[in-house]
Amino acid sequence: MARIVPDPAVATTLHSFRVRFCETDLMGIVHHSNYLQYFEAGRVEWLRRRGILYAEWTSNGIHTAVVEAVTKYHSPAKFDEELTCATTLAEMGGASLVYSYRLSKGETLVASGHTRLACVDTWQKLTKMPREMRDVLLVAERTTGP
Amino acid sequence: MARIVPDPAVATTLHSFRVRFCETDLMGIVHHSNYLQYFEAGRVEWLRRRGILYAEWTSNGIHTAVVEAVTKYHSPAKFDEELTCATTLAEMGGASLVYSYRLSKGETLVASGHTRLACVDTWQKLTKMPREMRDVLLVAERTTGP
Amino acid sequence: MARIVPDPAVATTLHSFRVRFCETDLMGIVHHSNYLQYFEAGRVEWLRRRGILYAEWTSNGIHTAVVEAVTKYHSPAKFDEELTCATTLAEMGGASLVYSYRLSKGETLVASGHTRLACVDTWQKLTKMPREMRDVLLVAERTTGP
Amino acid sequence: MARIVPDPAVATTLHSFRVRFCETDLMGIVHHSNYLQYFEAGRVEWLRRRGILYAEWTSNGIHTAVVEAVTKYHSPAKFDEELTCATTLAEMGGASLVYSYRLSKGETLVASGHTRLACVDTWQKLTKMPREMRDVLLVAERTTGP
Repeated sequence: MARIVPDPAVATTLHSFRVRFCETDLMGIVHHSNYLQYFEAGRVEWLRRRGILYAEWTSNGIHTAVVEAVTKYHSPAKFDEELTCATTLAEMGGASLVYSYRLSKGETLVASGHTRLACVDTWQKLTKMPREMRDVLLVAERTTGP
Repeated sequence: MARIVPDPAVATTLHSFRVRFCETDLMGIVHHSNYLQYFEAGRVEWLRRRGILYAEWTSNGIHTAVVEAVTKYHSPAKFDEELTCATTLAEMGGASLVYSYRLSKGETLVASGHTRLACVDTWQKLTKMPREMRDVLLVAERTTGP
Repeated sequence: MARIVPDPAVATTLHSFRVRFCETDLMGIVHHSNYLQYFEAGRVEWLRRRGILYAEWTSNGIHTAVVEAVTKYHSPAKFDEELTCATTLAEMGGASLVYSYRLSKGETLVASGHTRLACVDTWQKLTKMPREMRDVLLVAERTTGP
Repeated sequence: MARIVPDPAVATTLHSFRVRFCETDLMGIVHHSNYLQYFEAGRVEWLRRRGILYAEWTSNGIHTAVVEAVTKYHSPAKFDEELTCATTLAEMGGASLVYSYRLSKGETLVASGHTRLACVDTWQKLTKMPREMRDVLLVAERTTGP
């Protein structure tokens, strides 16, 4: 199936949250491994705004496993700061998805990156994405965040 | 089934490890939530030294769920310090276990505590511990650590 | 200085959040070490609603170090569930605070517990709480949550 | 200062450890954010084998901040499995370092990746690496692991 590059205006969702104390390290800044957790939270929210509960999806035996993750760290984030993650579905293949992320603190870019996800079943075997699944990923946000 | 208090000399296992960078917080010390992860690693090692692989145990559908956790923080631990966790099976009931922990850095006590575990099946339902399981928990270490 | 037990109606703050994917373990439920992180987030929000930014507080060299943590696990929480943490200042001494927590999912109690905090300086030395600090902790919420 | 590509035979260190229970997620495998923590532990061990304690280094006000992290996930790792991280200093610039990683379980490649580190001072400002620091990073292992 052809690779699709969705319209970023339609394919982007903003999600805001505060940095937790436990996410900092002895440098006084957010530890770099936490950004992948922020990106993931952004992705879950991205799905929710399109009417998809990832928890339901996985209960049907379809998982999207991260096969590649790239993060660039531009400016450190600190405890209690409010960050906003802009999550975009950047690319869709027959059995894979690429999401890109821009994490900001106000006007300041904190981190950017992308994750490549493969569609797998419960036994971690690559599975073609069902047509309904592909369709639903191309719609705009139905609901806005809290 | 009667409550059993094992002999601490037989029921104790030592496990050493280093503090990871990501386990520290902006105070420059180990974040307090990590100690429960250290205690858990001590408990897994405790089982291994008695010939029990927790991973195998859980694949048989028997889990030990933590129902209570108590930690006292005596002295902060820092990045890269080598800590030793002394894990002791302190008490055994029909469907529950209490493990106690003393975490030290050389002669200095860093943290102490205990966790109460309930024996549950895959659906989180309380299950009486099989006799074989009880017996195996009362033996001394068979092997020593790495 | 005398021990104070604040009025729970005044001394309680509610904070809601969603369980992240990375907070679950292979049992399919939230790993027990994460609850201390939820309690901490509740405590930070408790302070914010009373006009106190913990990040500012710590920059003045006054920290509240956790010296004891107790958690009881009543019912497992799962990925993406919305949990609410009711955080209460339960007790205040000259250089210590006790916060209690009740974490719920709708009507269901998920976990409860308390943490004892000691007032320390940057070098981890016990420090008497300044009068202004004690006073500000006894006021009701000024603002409500997001 | 010229970019240096060290000899991999000299610039590689192996570090083994077990997957902790708390590092798994509801898929039953290690959560993808933990690999950056494994890579970091490998890097700390890499330094130790060359006589460098990162904890001492940082106390001198020189930090190596992660500015880019790339991970490819080849095969899932599970609870209690013993993994080995091969950490290699892949490239050295005037104020930056690139470490590459290959994480294996026996013969199976679990994950690979690299991190780019910038040399910064306590205020996160880019700092040229002192000559002594560069020299010491080019030596072979002095000691072997535990």
